Amino acid sequence: MDERVKTWKEGYTSLPRHQHLPMDRFVDYFNAINSIGVTEVGGNSRFPYTKEYREAVNCIKEWMKEIGMTVHEDAIGNVYGKIKGINNHKSLMIGSHIDTVPDGGMFDGLLGVLSALTAVEAFVDQNGIPKWSIEVAAFVDEEGSRFNHGLFGSRAMIGEISEDTIHHYYDDEGISMAEAMKADGLHPEQLESVKRDMDQLIGYLELHIEQGIVLEENNQQIGVVDGIAGPARETFTFFGSADHAGNTPMNMRKDALIGASQFISAIEELPGKFSETAVATVGKITNYPNGTNVIPGKTEVTVDIRDVEEEVREELIEEIKATAQKIADKRELTLEISNGIRVQPVRMNAHMTELIESSTKDLNLSYRRMPSGAGHDAMLVGKKVPAGMIFVPSHKGKSHTPEEWTSMSNCLDGILVLERTLGKILSTYKEE
Amino acid sequence: MDERVKTWKEGYTSLPRHQHLPMDRFVDYFNAINSIGVTEVGGNSRFPYTKEYREAVNCIKEWMKEIGMTVHEDAIGNVYGKIKGINNHKSLMIGSHIDTVPDGGMFDGLLGVLSALTAVEAFVDQNGIPKWSIEVAAFVDEEGSRFNHGLFGSRAMIGEISEDTIHHYYDDEGISMAEAMKADGLHPEQLESVKRDMDQLIGYLELHIEQGIVLEENNQQIGVVDGIAGPARETFTFFGSADHAGNTPMNMRKDALIGASQFISAIEELPGKFSETAVATVGKITNYPNGTNVIPGKTEVTVDIRDVEEEVREELIEEIKATAQKIADKRELTLEISNGIRVQPVRMNAHMTELIESSTKDLNLSYRRMPSGAGHDAMLVGKKVPAGMIFVPSHKGKSHTPEEWTSMSNCLDGILVLERTLGKILSTYKEE
Repeated sequence: MDERVKTWKEGYTSLPRHQHLPMDRFVDYFNAINSIGVTEVGGNSRFPYTKEYREAVNCIKEWMKEIGMTVHEDAIGNVYGKIKGINNHKSLMIGSHIDTVPDGGMFDGLLGVLSALTAVEAFVDQNGIPKWSIEVAAFVDEEGSRFNHGLFGSRAMIGEISEDTIHHYYDDEGISMAEAMKADGLHPEQLESVKRDMDQLIGYLELHIEQGIVLEENNQQIGVVDGIAGPARETFTFFGSADHAGNTPMNMRKDALIGASQFISAIEELPGKFSETAVATVGKITNYPNGTNVIPGKTEVTVDIRDVEEEVREELIEEIKATAQKIADKRELTLEISNGIRVQPVRMNAHMTELIESSTKDLNLSYRRMPSGAGHDAMLVGKKVPAGMIFVPSHKGKSHTPEEWTSMSNCLDGILVLERTLGKILSTYKEE
Repeated sequence: MDERVKTWKEGYTSLPRHQHLPMDRFVDYFNAINSIGVTEVGGNSRFPYTKEYREAVNCIKEWMKEIGMTVHEDAIGNVYGKIKGINNHKSLMIGSHIDTVPDGGMFDGLLGVLSALTAVEAFVDQNGIPKWSIEVAAFVDEEGSRFNHGLFGSRAMIGEISEDTIHHYYDDEGISMAEAMKADGLHPEQLESVKRDMDQLIGYLELHIEQGIVLEENNQQIGVVDGIAGPARETFTFFGSADHAGNTPMNMRKDALIGASQFISAIEELPGKFSETAVATVGKITNYPNGTNVIPGKTEVTVDIRDVEEEVREELIEEIKATAQKIADKRELTLEISNGIRVQPVRMNAHMTELIESSTKDLNLSYRRMPSGAGHDAMLVGKKVPAGMIFVPSHKGKSHTPEEWTSMSNCLDGILVLERTLGKILSTYKEE
């Protein structure tokens, strides 16, 4: 057994509420996939259309069959396992992804797919043939690690990928996505067939690690995600005068970096004025000429701004822009603001969110409603069908690194919420 | 004639006070050297021990002979031209350098050497054989552009270069300084002979462009330099936690860049609390991981701190360190302060400075006493003998670029001050 998985399993104390779950199988799943693509630094790399990814997909398909699912892999590598319900013309879909970032951790994406398999198996064991069909989805290329465009599989499923695109996404070795698919035995030319009739989906559920520290800091077991905060980005460039650090008195300077620094300091206070969930981050700064003895003549900072409400986010962006302009004017610096990017925030479906919340309460698990700051497949699927998301805690908030960690107990609690919520959805769903 | 020199010459309106100077020769000097090593971007590159530098040195030596000087080039390429005085066992030295930075301007260094030749010629023409000898020095490798160690020739003259050193300074092509000297026909093995008996020097004068905007902004013709502000450098590294920009609420962050930004903003106010001449500059910032969607986990800033008074500078450094620590503590960041560098500030000799000031007054030129923020050969020579420095204005403060500019009128005014000051020094000097 993989050492990390062993540590994870041995850290678990058996709890009565988990007894009906097929825990051994869950641990086996976890061990099998995390033994694929282990890197030198002890993380995992499973990039789409590689030998490692194919090996993982084959495991997933095999397990789907073992628990009685009909398996379908579409033309670009999305995998669906279906339990036929009494009514088979509509499905509830539960999914996530099994690809990773370079040197990624054991949980991101994978936990969602394995939790879905486990929850569905437990649910069917307990309840027999479901009223409506249930599908477990493993979307391909969520991370974008190989071709630099993430959320690919779910985007293709909802029909937002054109055939042209897959011939123009290249990996670092110059292999196009279409070529990579073919080499993996897939059929990029049948892209049209990948698009699903979204009317046949009752809804979508996704369990994911939080990738943040909020649940752990608040000692809470479950995050009920009420929205995914689409990122917006704006780049601000301050222009001053690159003069000699020794020969220019303090009061004769036009120091671009001081302007940028005042701006960075000021940004911190702004999100809280607009909402509790809004965040704004300067992650990247580029300073010119960046020599120790030259007053900076040009400093560029990129601000990442997110909120679950698009309107709130746009108001915050306007305030950030006004703040930058005020600082530039006062310091006699020139300011340029680039045309940034905008990703639309997605509200989770209110009914789905309520069902997740009530399931959490039924189970006496502590929880909070919270936004997701990172994007997930649910962001795409949620544009078309009612979607809900469940977060489980990330130790120290670490993600996209081998340090990524969620205790087995936290994982199993997440599975319980998933199991209970899918039951509530199936029993309450009524065709219009 | 070089286009830049032509523009420079044609911008000049003849002034009565300049009439006795050999202006045509001065313009010819200027044109000849600035026609050597012209670069694609319209600047000049004359690096030590290159063909271009040798060509420039040969011009200087030729002109020294033409105005009646005895010429000596030492074993490493310092050039001295001497007018023998009635008393020949002691000399007043006037000098600067003729090497450049890459794509340098027309004035830095060169103006000091050409001004010295012109002032000495004018002085001897008017006054005959001087009471004491006068030497014009062109120090080699002041800029350090080729071997990355500047102020080389003057440092060697005062005996602060060891033979070991010149075998371990390399250029970008792996040629050692000693090899480069030999290829240029020089004699690095005779380094010992380069060291001068400093008791034989009455004093040292250097005219240089300001490389700052203070004179031009204040509409003043002459800067009487009272000290050279040695730079000190300290690197401050703030450590926070590199978390996800989307999933970490504003109040749970440890953002290293915000700490560094508050520090940079705070530094601006500190020098003024200690002295009018002190300056502190953050020219360089390095942020990690510097990704748009990651909260910075580590940010490094280098602060360049200068003052003419070492004690004041050290007090300012302590205040800057305390400020960094206070910010780090308040924000729960870890702070590391590296052991920085210290270059000793040098006070110009009070008597020399008074003579420059009184010469400036005699000539009815507007002036100010001021520090030099940049290092000059006078910083080295001034450690051993009384030294004085004269600044002339730099248009827009530009230096080390082809945009470097000082009007011909400003240059000639500087020559007048040099001529008058050397007369005062020679007539008032008394052996102890």
